[in-house]
Amino acid sequence: MRHSLSVGLLLVCLSFIGIALAPPALAGGGGGAPHQTAASTALAPSASAPKQAGEHHAFAFILLELTILIGMVIAGRWLADRFHQPAVLGELLIGVALGNIGYWLGLPFFSFVMDYGIASPLFEQVWRSGASVVDAASHVFGPKELVPGGKGYEVVHLMTGSGGLTNVNIGVSLWLFSSLGIVLLLFNVGLETGLQQLRQVGRKASVVAVVGVAATFFLGLAVTFPLLGDYPPQARVFLAATLCATSISISTRVLKDLDKHHTPEARIVLGASVFNDLLGLVLLAVCIELVLEGHIAYGETAWIVFLSSAFLGAIVVLGDRLGNRISDLLNALKANETRFLLPLAFAFLMGWIASEIGLSGTVGGFAAGLVLSDESLRARMKELLMPLITIFTPIFFLLIGMQVNLQTFLHWQTPVLTIALLLVAIGGKLLAGLSAGPSVDRLSVGMGMLPRGEVALIFASMGKGLGVLDSGVYAALIIVIITMAFASAVALRWSFARNAPTGG
Amino acid sequence: MRHSLSVGLLLVCLSFIGIALAPPALAGGGGGAPHQTAASTALAPSASAPKQAGEHHAFAFILLELTILIGMVIAGRWLADRFHQPAVLGELLIGVALGNIGYWLGLPFFSFVMDYGIASPLFEQVWRSGASVVDAASHVFGPKELVPGGKGYEVVHLMTGSGGLTNVNIGVSLWLFSSLGIVLLLFNVGLETGLQQLRQVGRKASVVAVVGVAATFFLGLAVTFPLLGDYPPQARVFLAATLCATSISISTRVLKDLDKHHTPEARIVLGASVFNDLLGLVLLAVCIELVLEGHIAYGETAWIVFLSSAFLGAIVVLGDRLGNRISDLLNALKANETRFLLPLAFAFLMGWIASEIGLSGTVGGFAAGLVLSDESLRARMKELLMPLITIFTPIFFLLIGMQVNLQTFLHWQTPVLTIALLLVAIGGKLLAGLSAGPSVDRLSVGMGMLPRGEVALIFASMGKGLGVLDSGVYAALIIVIITMAFASAVALRWSFARNAPTGG
Repeated sequence: MRHSLSVGLLLVCLSFIGIALAPPALAGGGGGAPHQTAASTALAPSASAPKQAGEHHAFAFILLELTILIGMVIAGRWLADRFHQPAVLGELLIGVALGNIGYWLGLPFFSFVMDYGIASPLFEQVWRSGASVVDAASHVFGPKELVPGGKGYEVVHLMTGSGGLTNVNIGVSLWLFSSLGIVLLLFNVGLETGLQQLRQVGRKASVVAVVGVAATFFLGLAVTFPLLGDYPPQARVFLAATLCATSISISTRVLKDLDKHHTPEARIVLGASVFNDLLGLVLLAVCIELVLEGHIAYGETAWIVFLSSAFLGAIVVLGDRLGNRISDLLNALKANETRFLLPLAFAFLMGWIASEIGLSGTVGGFAAGLVLSDESLRARMKELLMPLITIFTPIFFLLIGMQVNLQTFLHWQTPVLTIALLLVAIGGKLLAGLSAGPSVDRLSVGMGMLPRGEVALIFASMGKGLGVLDSGVYAALIIVIITMAFASAVALRWSFARNAPTGG
Repeated sequence: MRHSLSVGLLLVCLSFIGIALAPPALAGGGGGAPHQTAASTALAPSASAPKQAGEHHAFAFILLELTILIGMVIAGRWLADRFHQPAVLGELLIGVALGNIGYWLGLPFFSFVMDYGIASPLFEQVWRSGASVVDAASHVFGPKELVPGGKGYEVVHLMTGSGGLTNVNIGVSLWLFSSLGIVLLLFNVGLETGLQQLRQVGRKASVVAVVGVAATFFLGLAVTFPLLGDYPPQARVFLAATLCATSISISTRVLKDLDKHHTPEARIVLGASVFNDLLGLVLLAVCIELVLEGHIAYGETAWIVFLSSAFLGAIVVLGDRLGNRISDLLNALKANETRFLLPLAFAFLMGWIASEIGLSGTVGGFAAGLVLSDESLRARMKELLMPLITIFTPIFFLLIGMQVNLQTFLHWQTPVLTIALLLVAIGGKLLAGLSAGPSVDRLSVGMGMLPRGEVALIFASMGKGLGVLDSGVYAALIIVIITMAFASAVALRWSFARNAPTGG
């Protein structure tokens, strides 16, 4: 145990030292040559020889980045394990802590990750338009952001000059690794959820899920009127929807830890959480569509609800047959490697199909997991997925944590919003518990629906990426998700202990 | 078996259909809006709303790309298995075949991969200079390449406009995935080689390795004088060095298949191959340094030989102690996930350190594998690495195959060069066999040293990436490596059968 801590801290320290010692690319990005930034025409005529040296060493910084990130993951997981908390909580918290420390210290890697949300539109604009970085920036940022000290100026500065290429590579690699992490995570959630379990969700659990989503959504929407009156409607819808998701993995874990997973309350909670995941993914598709439309469009909303319901419905109805066919094929294959590659290709293909019909790629990953959730495959699949998920998914969680700018809590609005959202997140799910009927302990059911986790984090991350959640709202949301993940375990323990005789 | 074929072909077909059906990004990159290419100033003023839609769907194309690549890997592995050949051979050949078909059909994805070597300097130049894509291109390419029909024009066209962002994302992701694949591959080679085995390499095996490397290198250098007289000296050195590597994995596999791996000849071959790997990695570091210097610099060469020998020597001497410490730490850790992350972080850290001291990141991966090659760790490590290696390493092999432009064989020079290099590759290693002494079958030892594999492919790929091997020389080299991997199995079988009584 003590060993584990020392390794984690060692890796993190090494990483910090590494960043400090790595001129010119990582460390020099901030302090490099400020004059070069705007000098888009000042190209050295013989730029081709040193350029290739740079390319050769570019991957070294990706290796360093991966070392830093994995070091952070190890430290976060060790902390979570130490305090008997879910691993995701440790990863988020270490991300928030080190991300903010690095940002305050002005380390370019952490500054770049904090500004990552505004750096990616610039990256895109450069290649879409073919214009120079400065010209492209003038179309992405307002004039006020482009003067020295402004956000836009800072990002242009980080992405060009001596350290620019490294920062761009870091940005793209973080995007790729974390996006891969989300699809794999949802693939795994689909595998764990299972088609059978999805079909067995009872009437009572469905009611709890629907009431929970509806109550949280409308309560969430309601608090945005006094607090975020000047926000566009699609931003408010996004915010409210983010609060609706529950975390089936956290509630399963807590109920198992308490040895209460065979109680009637737990069965309702788990069934409702499964159904809640489905509703959450449909809501996510709707929210993304609304943001891309730029306003509340009822026709598009109805269409996307139909499309995602049809897609997920088809999987629920036909998934067995497809799963059996794939299972037969896998049994016919000899090589272990191919038996692993085929399901993975299937998951990526489903992700692409889901994206192409206008849903999120994560929905496709989830559907692929459902299709392959047959008992004969599941254990083997999860074992093979473990190394991939263990690397890429925590990078997504770290990145989420590292983008929480704690400075936003210095404005009174962010803490007030955080408290309001916490109340909504709790109130909505307690109302869901009430709908479970008098035959069970309704408070325990409500408590069981409290945890927020993966799906809520995907919402928050996409909202930030789409530019619809600003850094204050985003920070408030992540703190709410972290608090709920932590507090729900305590609340459930208390609630079940309160009326111990009712339990199994 | 038949199932496996149908799946492989199905995936490949699906992928081709996918590319054809995916306007505007993948398919439209080629046929999109040719006028936009040079219109670096024609930015739509309200570019921010559609831009975010693009970003949201950008990952869909990465999912499609992964589906295509994994489909190709499955098909390649199925073919290799069918004809009892190493998997790497199937991956290379399917890469060459589909890469060239796609290129001839003008599919942008395959055109982009074929031109990948010249696209990456442009990517780099844009971020380094901050200039517009067209301005940056004028510094990377000559004026003749930038007129319509020229390579530079084509690449600028592929990287800007409606499909530009997708192609750029595909390029960066291929670079990341394949680079990760190389480091993981060498980590695995280090694990398989093992510190113990490295120390047990006998005098006779060392002599065979040194003679094989020296003979192949000087023969290779000699043939460049008549055939590539106008090439710079560092390019010729690179070419000759590429031929020196042997493939320990292919020779191990073939000897095991023949059930000859306990013969005295096999022991010499395997020992010499291990030592050859070490010499090859030192040579690689030297070659890269020479290219970056731009000329033959004896002082730098001596320094890099010293540095890499010291690095690898330190690992051989101190690796056990470091390995034991890591092993203790791992035993102290409870969570399976952390026990996997820690060695991986170690491998990435070693890769970074090796890059920082001027060696290649792959040398660091190899060193990390050696350190963790203790019997108590190796099996578990290999099991956990399998999923990662199974995805990323084949992408590296595919990419190598897809960059072999078969059109270069229409010029008489490429086939002539291929034959000359084949003769060098065979002759140098047969000379190595002669040095094994009269107590063993010297021809079988020489035949055992023939296979070329991973390390030679890394050489070729880096040589192309550094711009030192042009597309004709590169294509000739890859064909030589493919032929040697295939022919060495046949040759060894014949040689051992020739004097069966000598065998164990």
